[in-house]
Amino acid sequence: MKLPHGLSEHDLLRRLDRFQIETPSWAYADTGTRFGKFLQDAAAVTIDDKLADAAAVHRVTGCCPTFAVHVLWDFTAAADPAIVAAKAAALGLGIGSINPNTFQDQCYKLGSVTNRDPAIRRRAIDHILACISLGSRVGSNILSLWFADGTNYPGQGHIRQRKRWIADALHEVHRALPDAMSMLVEYKPFEPAFYHTDIADWGMACAFARHAGPRAKVLVDLGHHLHGCNVEHIVAFLIDEGLLGGFHFNDRKYADDDLVAGSLDPFQLFRIFHEIVLAERETGADLPIAYMIDQSECIKPKAESMIETVMTIQEQFTKALLVDHRAAAAARERDDIVMAGRALKDAFATDVRPFLADYRAARNLPRDPLDAFRQSGHLARAAAERAPRKPRNSGSYA
Amino acid sequence: MKLPHGLSEHDLLRRLDRFQIETPSWAYADTGTRFGKFLQDAAAVTIDDKLADAAAVHRVTGCCPTFAVHVLWDFTAAADPAIVAAKAAALGLGIGSINPNTFQDQCYKLGSVTNRDPAIRRRAIDHILACISLGSRVGSNILSLWFADGTNYPGQGHIRQRKRWIADALHEVHRALPDAMSMLVEYKPFEPAFYHTDIADWGMACAFARHAGPRAKVLVDLGHHLHGCNVEHIVAFLIDEGLLGGFHFNDRKYADDDLVAGSLDPFQLFRIFHEIVLAERETGADLPIAYMIDQSECIKPKAESMIETVMTIQEQFTKALLVDHRAAAAARERDDIVMAGRALKDAFATDVRPFLADYRAARNLPRDPLDAFRQSGHLARAAAERAPRKPRNSGSYA
Amino acid sequence: MKLPHGLSEHDLLRRLDRFQIETPSWAYADTGTRFGKFLQDAAAVTIDDKLADAAAVHRVTGCCPTFAVHVLWDFTAAADPAIVAAKAAALGLGIGSINPNTFQDQCYKLGSVTNRDPAIRRRAIDHILACISLGSRVGSNILSLWFADGTNYPGQGHIRQRKRWIADALHEVHRALPDAMSMLVEYKPFEPAFYHTDIADWGMACAFARHAGPRAKVLVDLGHHLHGCNVEHIVAFLIDEGLLGGFHFNDRKYADDDLVAGSLDPFQLFRIFHEIVLAERETGADLPIAYMIDQSECIKPKAESMIETVMTIQEQFTKALLVDHRAAAAARERDDIVMAGRALKDAFATDVRPFLADYRAARNLPRDPLDAFRQSGHLARAAAERAPRKPRNSGSYA
Amino acid sequence: MKLPHGLSEHDLLRRLDRFQIETPSWAYADTGTRFGKFLQDAAAVTIDDKLADAAAVHRVTGCCPTFAVHVLWDFTAAADPAIVAAKAAALGLGIGSINPNTFQDQCYKLGSVTNRDPAIRRRAIDHILACISLGSRVGSNILSLWFADGTNYPGQGHIRQRKRWIADALHEVHRALPDAMSMLVEYKPFEPAFYHTDIADWGMACAFARHAGPRAKVLVDLGHHLHGCNVEHIVAFLIDEGLLGGFHFNDRKYADDDLVAGSLDPFQLFRIFHEIVLAERETGADLPIAYMIDQSECIKPKAESMIETVMTIQEQFTKALLVDHRAAAAARERDDIVMAGRALKDAFATDVRPFLADYRAARNLPRDPLDAFRQSGHLARAAAERAPRKPRNSGSYA
Repeated sequence: MKLPHGLSEHDLLRRLDRFQIETPSWAYADTGTRFGKFLQDAAAVTIDDKLADAAAVHRVTGCCPTFAVHVLWDFTAAADPAIVAAKAAALGLGIGSINPNTFQDQCYKLGSVTNRDPAIRRRAIDHILACISLGSRVGSNILSLWFADGTNYPGQGHIRQRKRWIADALHEVHRALPDAMSMLVEYKPFEPAFYHTDIADWGMACAFARHAGPRAKVLVDLGHHLHGCNVEHIVAFLIDEGLLGGFHFNDRKYADDDLVAGSLDPFQLFRIFHEIVLAERETGADLPIAYMIDQSECIKPKAESMIETVMTIQEQFTKALLVDHRAAAAARERDDIVMAGRALKDAFATDVRPFLADYRAARNLPRDPLDAFRQSGHLARAAAERAPRKPRNSGSYA
Repeated sequence: MKLPHGLSEHDLLRRLDRFQIETPSWAYADTGTRFGKFLQDAAAVTIDDKLADAAAVHRVTGCCPTFAVHVLWDFTAAADPAIVAAKAAALGLGIGSINPNTFQDQCYKLGSVTNRDPAIRRRAIDHILACISLGSRVGSNILSLWFADGTNYPGQGHIRQRKRWIADALHEVHRALPDAMSMLVEYKPFEPAFYHTDIADWGMACAFARHAGPRAKVLVDLGHHLHGCNVEHIVAFLIDEGLLGGFHFNDRKYADDDLVAGSLDPFQLFRIFHEIVLAERETGADLPIAYMIDQSECIKPKAESMIETVMTIQEQFTKALLVDHRAAAAARERDDIVMAGRALKDAFATDVRPFLADYRAARNLPRDPLDAFRQSGHLARAAAERAPRKPRNSGSYA
Repeated sequence: MKLPHGLSEHDLLRRLDRFQIETPSWAYADTGTRFGKFLQDAAAVTIDDKLADAAAVHRVTGCCPTFAVHVLWDFTAAADPAIVAAKAAALGLGIGSINPNTFQDQCYKLGSVTNRDPAIRRRAIDHILACISLGSRVGSNILSLWFADGTNYPGQGHIRQRKRWIADALHEVHRALPDAMSMLVEYKPFEPAFYHTDIADWGMACAFARHAGPRAKVLVDLGHHLHGCNVEHIVAFLIDEGLLGGFHFNDRKYADDDLVAGSLDPFQLFRIFHEIVLAERETGADLPIAYMIDQSECIKPKAESMIETVMTIQEQFTKALLVDHRAAAAARERDDIVMAGRALKDAFATDVRPFLADYRAARNLPRDPLDAFRQSGHLARAAAERAPRKPRNSGSYA
Repeated sequence: MKLPHGLSEHDLLRRLDRFQIETPSWAYADTGTRFGKFLQDAAAVTIDDKLADAAAVHRVTGCCPTFAVHVLWDFTAAADPAIVAAKAAALGLGIGSINPNTFQDQCYKLGSVTNRDPAIRRRAIDHILACISLGSRVGSNILSLWFADGTNYPGQGHIRQRKRWIADALHEVHRALPDAMSMLVEYKPFEPAFYHTDIADWGMACAFARHAGPRAKVLVDLGHHLHGCNVEHIVAFLIDEGLLGGFHFNDRKYADDDLVAGSLDPFQLFRIFHEIVLAERETGADLPIAYMIDQSECIKPKAESMIETVMTIQEQFTKALLVDHRAAAAARERDDIVMAGRALKDAFATDVRPFLADYRAARNLPRDPLDAFRQSGHLARAAAERAPRKPRNSGSYA
């Protein structure tokens, strides 16, 4: 594998060592579409199951030391959150981002922080504040905010009024952040709202983050864009504005399909990493970006699809590290578009799998994480143990 | 309201009298998104509730005499389907289309009629055959087929093999149709499948319908198209091919949002009706099209949103009847694009609400169906009576 | 026509009187697609022709007193720009926005203000500065900036570097603005650039406008959005940020089709105006928005399509004025989504054509501007006079 | 490079030898967007220039022995077409597809074979018949039909009437085909028509091809689909229907951007070839598909971008040949979606560039065609020789 000018093998290995990916608790549980859930015997039911799966993923990949939690689904009012953190630590995991849930309770039918009822807005904000407190106790330093708020019909809501409610809420939330914690503002054009979503695109997320305060950044979920959107352009723009906070990796062909990362458009993933690597090469420092997965794989075995995603992200990031920036810059300088582009194409065309296998072996990791996971028998054991605990009924569309 | 050349008031009234819209049982029940269901106290729980709602909608609109049923959700193995038909009849309703369900059972996780397991393919076909039999017993003359079959990842399925399985299945189903029954083949580009859907567009639905036999037609669901698709073009094309079987009305801005018809793009609804009316004007006969609603309104009161949809459809159909085809044809004949288009714009700009209020009054219907429904107190009674019977838990995303 | 609470007929008429729409010089000339131009005998060749057409449009509509100019196409180096302004004034027109052209000259093949060659960047900025000076001389108070800059391939350009070049350029341009002039920054996702456009969306336009200075605002062209984009949400957001500077009206179904406004999605146009009217009703003052047309009608007679656009805009704006905001707010306050939406639907369903005919008559304007224009014989005269002056050859695709 | 079960190196080499790609005359000439053309000194002006460029491309790639011609642009009424064929032959090229032009002449403003004027319809058909005759004389065996016909506004045309005009025209054209010639029907959703295009999608192209006769097939241009369309699904479907006639290769991110193939979505190109290879592996025979390029590169040097496209197509086709179909089938048979997909991912991840370099060397071709082309000095010579012959003026948008 040919290394580009300016990148020693040592630098490459070190950068990979520092490239860590967070897996989310909810991606280990059964999820589905509005038409129902197809249950998997081995899918996680409890927070313990989820931690066990995340630990298994980290064991074979070596790059997933943190675990994102969703408050409603992973913590009970009764239990001490520190117990979850302790269990995670015992498995070699840390708690990563903490994700409030202001979209599931029935009271949020017409909005959470944008509800026209001040009591519901208060409840939503209080829940987020409680999440900050909970996060502090479990060692999280990222508050990750996604709001399902929006409307389904023209006239249903007062768009500018709702905008101000969000701005006020985020401002209040920012004030409550402990020093070590940052907050990420996620955007999404639609679903579950089908006419307007209050934080619909990166521009709105930027405006809210700026208004909230200096520790608010933007979270880019790869499935949250309209067709044709140039996501790497947004990424580059956010980097330049100092507002890129993190990613939710997944892939999609149509809407927010939440498939395995890179499964439909691996070149886009590469191009996104290229923008990051280019910026890092210029400053000589890693950008402070949270690399997180948010997928909702419904038919592949949960933990396997997570390993697939992690491996794909690692491969595309490695390819991005191989771009010959000097050659690209020289080509741009002589208006040689063909060769400027070829610097990227050549890196993308490189087969980095053998290198990554060696890289893993050198770190006492399996050369092929997916194969190692299959051989571990984790899924079969999980299925045997969890199936009896699962609900028989997965609900019905109507 | 100015009538165009060639349309007497008598003709207009008669055509409206013959314009009937079918409402679906499932649109009266609680539905949601993959993130959960927001429950409505007044939403229907049982088939009896659904029939009561459909009857209430028909009572105020006068144009919804049939009721589409979904087999899994509306019939129990134990009960005699004729009882449902009798209950419907007692409420002044007939059973309209019958809709098999080959997407909810866990065995269909990887496909129904396209499952690689012949036993599951058999089970899916047998279910459809049973629906035909059930449909015959309840007086239905339309078998409405939607398949969720598809794949989420490149390589997951063998596309051409699956194509042949569908073709074989539909052929077998067609052979079982009683003389009075036709079958409609629905298409959809994605959801719940996110890489490929086996019947992805009208062209595929056509191919399968043609292969199945002469009583197979295509069903156009307004939410099942890619962005930018010219739906009225497809409608006109299908009319000319003799393959337009029916519609599932709803509206959307993004994906298959299943909102109230005409709520986002009323002009598209008008243009679709314009193609139908134009063809009918040329032949002097109504086209044999099943006008059906398929919406999944999650936040408006179910029955109210149904009335809204019915009223909107009626309004746009009436506007389409007002197009001055003679003027449009004359303008086209002299290449006067401006005036050819203005024939449509003028009809669309017409306010037909007063006319429709008079039309309803003359038929002993309320001038404003939505207002009449509200005054009837149906929702409050339904809420009081149904809420105690509802499950408390609406499920959870993860 | 029923007026909503809080809007007297006097207010309505006055607001319409203050609602003026600017037509663009280039929309009177022959334009085409990349496959060629279909020439119209009556299309304008010279600036005098364009002024004559704009004056004819204003004569029958009464609401188009200003005229947007495009520097390369409307001014020659040799001639005194004041002559154009004087000719316009003689026809009852004022010069509206001034539009630099940094996309036609061969030197801009790889960018204007983002060209990697400093000399070309300088040339582009100097051209814009010259436009400001020219604009001052002709009485323009709006500098309208659209950049075609972008790239066609990944790696072709350095996205963040280009971002800074734009920021610097706009900052310099802002400094040169005379007190009376504001600058509008337009965004567009693609075309003519096909991989990334440097100012791709409203969020980027905002960032550049904010960086440039207080008299920089955002220009919303209705055809410059990705599919599914909620444009009225952007409009509301920009209003709230104090950054909505103006519109380029047109319509499209696919890309930047530049068709007659409202010809495909009239309801969207209404919803956009609704957001504006709602904001104006709250403050009691007109928003300082430049309402401009930018269409590139290729097959309808140029001036006729302009009149059609103006009439449609006027109709949808009038409908937006009819929304009953008090009823809508009351419905929202009781979570009555159906009635909140109906306030908009009712206004949109209203036929405002008779009212507008009366409105025009009361101002000594023709009741039907399009009909009056046809009867004026303008097109036939223009065709006879201009055809001999037109080039015979419209170019070829390849 | 690991070969999959069932594919010997000999088979792989032979299949590549039989994989030929046709380049189009028009892609060597200056083209642009509606905003203008950026002229290249080295771009071809005459048919001789185009032949010289195509020969240069074939010289370095070895797989482009045929040359597509566009009648209006490549033949003059006066000259004998056989002279063009002879010149091509002298350069080692054969004439490939012949492309009529029914969209450039002013008379086609409102349609060619769908024009409401029978004289214009006649003229368009006669032109196509003349192309058949011309094609026969130059040894072409493919008539490639693209119609720009469509409308820009609702009501402009009578959609079903136009459908019948197309059907009649294609039927007449098919009757005139000599035995050795087939005809390909291309589809496109929009541009230059912006409301409806008469042959908008593959389903319509199928219907017209079937009606025309057995030698009519469908032509898939990769840029002619709506966003989200699963093109490989269409390809597989057409293969199964026996109606896949050929491809126009290019890539795009937004509309019909006509960029270098695989430059934005190389994985899609791979997936398309995968469907073809899978079908070929099953039957043991090559599918009779015409692999043609249709790109409109505006900023890269014409011939270089053609070589880039050819190399990319060859790479992705080679990767598709590497898919382990036995492993994929076995995985599907045990419902192992992960491994079924991995068969494709592994092939796509393989770096085939070294293999292709060896392959070329073994055939006395340069290992790197682009590099060889650059070293040949072709572009500099062409620029010096052609520039003086080029028009100075590239036209103007308005």
